Amino acid sequence: MKVKDIGEFGLIERIAKIVEYADERVILAIGDDTAVVKPTKLDYTLLTTDLLVENVHFTLNTITPWQLGYKSISVNLSDIAAMGGIPNYAVISLALSPETEVSLVEDMYRGMADVSRKYGLRVVGGDITKSDRLIINVAMIGEVEDSSLCRRSDAKVGDIIMVTGVLGASAAGLRIVLNPAIEKTVREAQELKKAHFLPEPRLKEGRILASIGINAMEDISDGLASEIKHICEASLVGARLFMNKIPIAKGVESVASLTGEKAIDIALSGGEDYELVFTAPKELELEIVESLAKIGTKVTVVGEIVNSSEGISIIDWSGSKKPLDISGYTHF
Amino acid sequence: MKVKDIGEFGLIERIAKIVEYADERVILAIGDDTAVVKPTKLDYTLLTTDLLVENVHFTLNTITPWQLGYKSISVNLSDIAAMGGIPNYAVISLALSPETEVSLVEDMYRGMADVSRKYGLRVVGGDITKSDRLIINVAMIGEVEDSSLCRRSDAKVGDIIMVTGVLGASAAGLRIVLNPAIEKTVREAQELKKAHFLPEPRLKEGRILASIGINAMEDISDGLASEIKHICEASLVGARLFMNKIPIAKGVESVASLTGEKAIDIALSGGEDYELVFTAPKELELEIVESLAKIGTKVTVVGEIVNSSEGISIIDWSGSKKPLDISGYTHF
Repeated sequence: MKVKDIGEFGLIERIAKIVEYADERVILAIGDDTAVVKPTKLDYTLLTTDLLVENVHFTLNTITPWQLGYKSISVNLSDIAAMGGIPNYAVISLALSPETEVSLVEDMYRGMADVSRKYGLRVVGGDITKSDRLIINVAMIGEVEDSSLCRRSDAKVGDIIMVTGVLGASAAGLRIVLNPAIEKTVREAQELKKAHFLPEPRLKEGRILASIGINAMEDISDGLASEIKHICEASLVGARLFMNKIPIAKGVESVASLTGEKAIDIALSGGEDYELVFTAPKELELEIVESLAKIGTKVTVVGEIVNSSEGISIIDWSGSKKPLDISGYTHF
Repeated sequence: MKVKDIGEFGLIERIAKIVEYADERVILAIGDDTAVVKPTKLDYTLLTTDLLVENVHFTLNTITPWQLGYKSISVNLSDIAAMGGIPNYAVISLALSPETEVSLVEDMYRGMADVSRKYGLRVVGGDITKSDRLIINVAMIGEVEDSSLCRRSDAKVGDIIMVTGVLGASAAGLRIVLNPAIEKTVREAQELKKAHFLPEPRLKEGRILASIGINAMEDISDGLASEIKHICEASLVGARLFMNKIPIAKGVESVASLTGEKAIDIALSGGEDYELVFTAPKELELEIVESLAKIGTKVTVVGEIVNSSEGISIIDWSGSKKPLDISGYTHF
């Protein structure tokens, strides 16, 4: 059955059944001019949006519809996590070809519904329209207390720079997807592909870090090097990274040796890890490590914030300092 | 200068200058993982989103970038108006070709900024990405009191059905745009084209109507016939329209005679008028007419809500009743 067989309103009815569940915060979900929800209660409302276009951001040859739905919500949740916030509501815009299979759309919304339930988000409405390719826009509302809000501009000279988890897994997974010949020779291929297709937003970690009182925070969507640059520019500071401390995901080394790259470059510039990078006073290090260990999340000191006059540099294996190559993802 | 010459971040800087203005409700606008704003204060938050794709919803051969920006915001504001609400914040997702002229993007944001200022909306963030065509998604937050919320499902048997303004202008304007040969023979061509390219959201009218205590309300985006059907389905009622009472915009008759259509069909099914259609107890008619006259807005009784068993019908010029042809805009 194709989208054109059941039409716009037939499709909306099916989607509503997938994403709706009882929730006293939702006054009106799908089916009126706008969704109607209870306002966020904390000091601030967080607002974020993300546009995904077929053959630019994904191709249906490699990602399953369920994974695509899951990931499209997850990457927005990651932005809420990076502010120290809690997610609340989302509205989804979708453009589809009339020839699209209804089951594809339903699987995609099942992925959205599954990750939404997991993190307390509610999909409350959207827009469906026509196109010759799949286009998905997710707009999301969250909330945060004034005391927990983690601005990009709050890094202080002397702060340590830390990251959650390990880096490079998503970018290595993408290389395997684009080059299936190397899959069999990489033992961790499945984990790396999973990191690429199904990133988990670090929402719990973001809340814990915000409550401990860290300074600046970002999620790592464009690569660590690029995110550090954002923090430094917004905070008017410099940074020094230690190459031998960057936590590289297992298997990235194998992929790098097959693609003729360096594992460290994949970890620094690959992007789409959706880990958190943050800065904090040195004296909070132990509390941060112990608090995140309690929920099973590794966290690593990878550098320090220095005076802006020093710029952004990396100390390599030999101990010599050089400017950090900022080559994160850019669209144009 | 093209988008690829200044890159994603160069473009974001220029956009930020166009849409940002002092506003104590906005804590962080463009430049962090999410926008941070003060929560809405009224009982409910309204959430709406709309996706526009080049060559599906518009073509840059006919609409100017400034008009496109204005209209993309205006149609979302119209959804807020139809709930009886007040608009607050918007986030914009944009996909562009690297070859797009920067001035086109800036003109579009100027249109967005102009209509936003006019109606108290604040554009606070967004996402920019690559595509081979222009894609715009607007997601908007508004707010409304419980007592003012105008649900689609609140029409009551015995209500009168009213519409603001006149109908068919936008659809007639579109016909002129698609068929420039007829432009010179239609005296009202400029007004009709303006109705198509620059619809004004009926926000003031929506607030006044909500405060008077009308029942169901919708904006007329898909055509009056189609919107009446939505109200009837959601409210489990029927409706009777009077053909000779439908307020048809000046010039629609001329266009219809040139395209071989009937003016009444353009008014009933053309869509994109962004007027409001609403139902109210008969005894409120005078108060409604007088209150909207004070702000210069015409309002007309076009029908009545009847029992669901009667279905949806129209009384034609001869006084005979027939089922209403519901042929509003559908995407698939």
